[in-house]
Amino acid sequence: MASEFAIIEQYFSDVGKAAENTLLGVGDDAAVVDLPAGQQLVVAMDTLIEGTHFPQNTSPADIAYKSLAVNLSDLAAMGAKPAWFLMSLTLDNDDPQWLSRFAEGLKETSNEYGLQLIGGDTCRGKLAISIQIAGHLPNGQFVTRQGANPGDIILVSGVLGNAALGLAQQQGNLELTPALRSHCVLALNRPRPRLELGPFLRQFASSAIDISDGLVGDLKHILKASACGARISLESLPVNQWIEQHGAWEYALGAGDDYEICCTLPAGLCGEVDNWNNANPDCRLTPIGEITESGYYLQDGDDMINLDQRQGYRHFA
Amino acid sequence: MASEFAIIEQYFSDVGKAAENTLLGVGDDAAVVDLPAGQQLVVAMDTLIEGTHFPQNTSPADIAYKSLAVNLSDLAAMGAKPAWFLMSLTLDNDDPQWLSRFAEGLKETSNEYGLQLIGGDTCRGKLAISIQIAGHLPNGQFVTRQGANPGDIILVSGVLGNAALGLAQQQGNLELTPALRSHCVLALNRPRPRLELGPFLRQFASSAIDISDGLVGDLKHILKASACGARISLESLPVNQWIEQHGAWEYALGAGDDYEICCTLPAGLCGEVDNWNNANPDCRLTPIGEITESGYYLQDGDDMINLDQRQGYRHFA
Repeated sequence: MASEFAIIEQYFSDVGKAAENTLLGVGDDAAVVDLPAGQQLVVAMDTLIEGTHFPQNTSPADIAYKSLAVNLSDLAAMGAKPAWFLMSLTLDNDDPQWLSRFAEGLKETSNEYGLQLIGGDTCRGKLAISIQIAGHLPNGQFVTRQGANPGDIILVSGVLGNAALGLAQQQGNLELTPALRSHCVLALNRPRPRLELGPFLRQFASSAIDISDGLVGDLKHILKASACGARISLESLPVNQWIEQHGAWEYALGAGDDYEICCTLPAGLCGEVDNWNNANPDCRLTPIGEITESGYYLQDGDDMINLDQRQGYRHFA
Repeated sequence: MASEFAIIEQYFSDVGKAAENTLLGVGDDAAVVDLPAGQQLVVAMDTLIEGTHFPQNTSPADIAYKSLAVNLSDLAAMGAKPAWFLMSLTLDNDDPQWLSRFAEGLKETSNEYGLQLIGGDTCRGKLAISIQIAGHLPNGQFVTRQGANPGDIILVSGVLGNAALGLAQQQGNLELTPALRSHCVLALNRPRPRLELGPFLRQFASSAIDISDGLVGDLKHILKASACGARISLESLPVNQWIEQHGAWEYALGAGDDYEICCTLPAGLCGEVDNWNNANPDCRLTPIGEITESGYYLQDGDDMINLDQRQGYRHFA
């Protein structure tokens, strides 16, 4: 087996473009970075484990992409711009072909999002990828889960449920049309972190979170942190036709992996949402409800379902 | 099983003292930190896996300590002062007693070294602890592996080989006296990252590395990065009496886990080393050889052993 040093040198010493603020990258005991003037550092860390976070047959490039995307999505929810990352890679073997394809995927994604790999380590064990990511934003402009206020509108970006449908398709639990299938599998394997929302969130949002565990559960984190309630409406949820036709709302409400952004805005800023949507047709924000004083409800026609009494995000339907 | 959120909230939401520069810690999508004026950020990441980096019967507090210590040692080798860390914890179960003892160990060590846990995640799988650590140092004063020059003296801190002896004792490969045994097992389980050397290294060292894989292999990283050679002398190595009496130099030369610092200094600064040693009897620096133009040799009496021809760090003797 190749040594840790050989693997890092061969595959991971030049992932991403050297940033102006990186003073020392891969290859020493630690990396050294500067923070641009007037900026604060935003840091997150997420681990993906084979069999838990992705199926065993996932392509190395898709694993590389997703490992970065889930971390980038955390930065997106804060309103930050990506800068660099560290990676701890646990490998069960060192198949050069797998490593090459993984490293290529990492480079492609790093270049796409303006990231640089500046350090980390490799270990032996079951395949796992731990990434610690860092980004910047202007002093004091970070967006948290705790600023929502009664009367705020609740918005989500993009379309909900596609990733979960893609997973169900891959697991053989349903059969989609070929076009919808490829669309949903892409949503599962290549979720788009909504970094483009950064400036909008920093300027207008009272709170934000990324939807990794499902809308109902993730919005609840905002409600808990902000000490508020919410009422959302089923018919307003942005979903694909299949979910609407089959009434399969559980994919949009309770399933994870969409990595869309859920945020809240003072109701007076509806015009800003319209402006955003006109300028950004690929990242539309859809109003799905409003923040209330207390309670957590889903309106389905004349029914009002109490979401606080539902157990767990997988068991909504 | 408890959810990720419940585990983080119960055990890991208040590890370490909130630092002045932490604007947002555990509990959001990401953490937000400031960098003190005039300082640069030093970051490293190391993963410890059960069975590979520590035996299965290691106490939770020792695992917590060592997970931080190996990362702190990377900061020490750069001359940095610790600030905060992120942790990705992979658990095979959630035994509350194990988690409590692990979290207590993490808190104790964080408080000792002035660190704060500001984020991370938990996963299901074989026990593994991935820590990403960050520290600060004054602009431009970081110490790397690449500044050694011919004529520089080579120094190591503390005593070499104790951790490896402790491991051999635990594995039943040798029998130490009770006093030496407890000393060496302590060196194995509670290595002291040499953070106190920071100001000295920043001011005087031309290069530095921490000894995690064994002196011969780690010094070689300095030689490669600095494009130099070295000659070290067996009789100058700081070792305990047992190693000296048994001529068991392989523990000092080739075995890892000591986490002492190996550094180089211009020869004219010998007086500074004496001053340091007089003021810091618990962290003495011992000259063990000098940097040369090329070649890598160990002098053993009249013999000159070519270290470039030795395979691997475990196979020195």
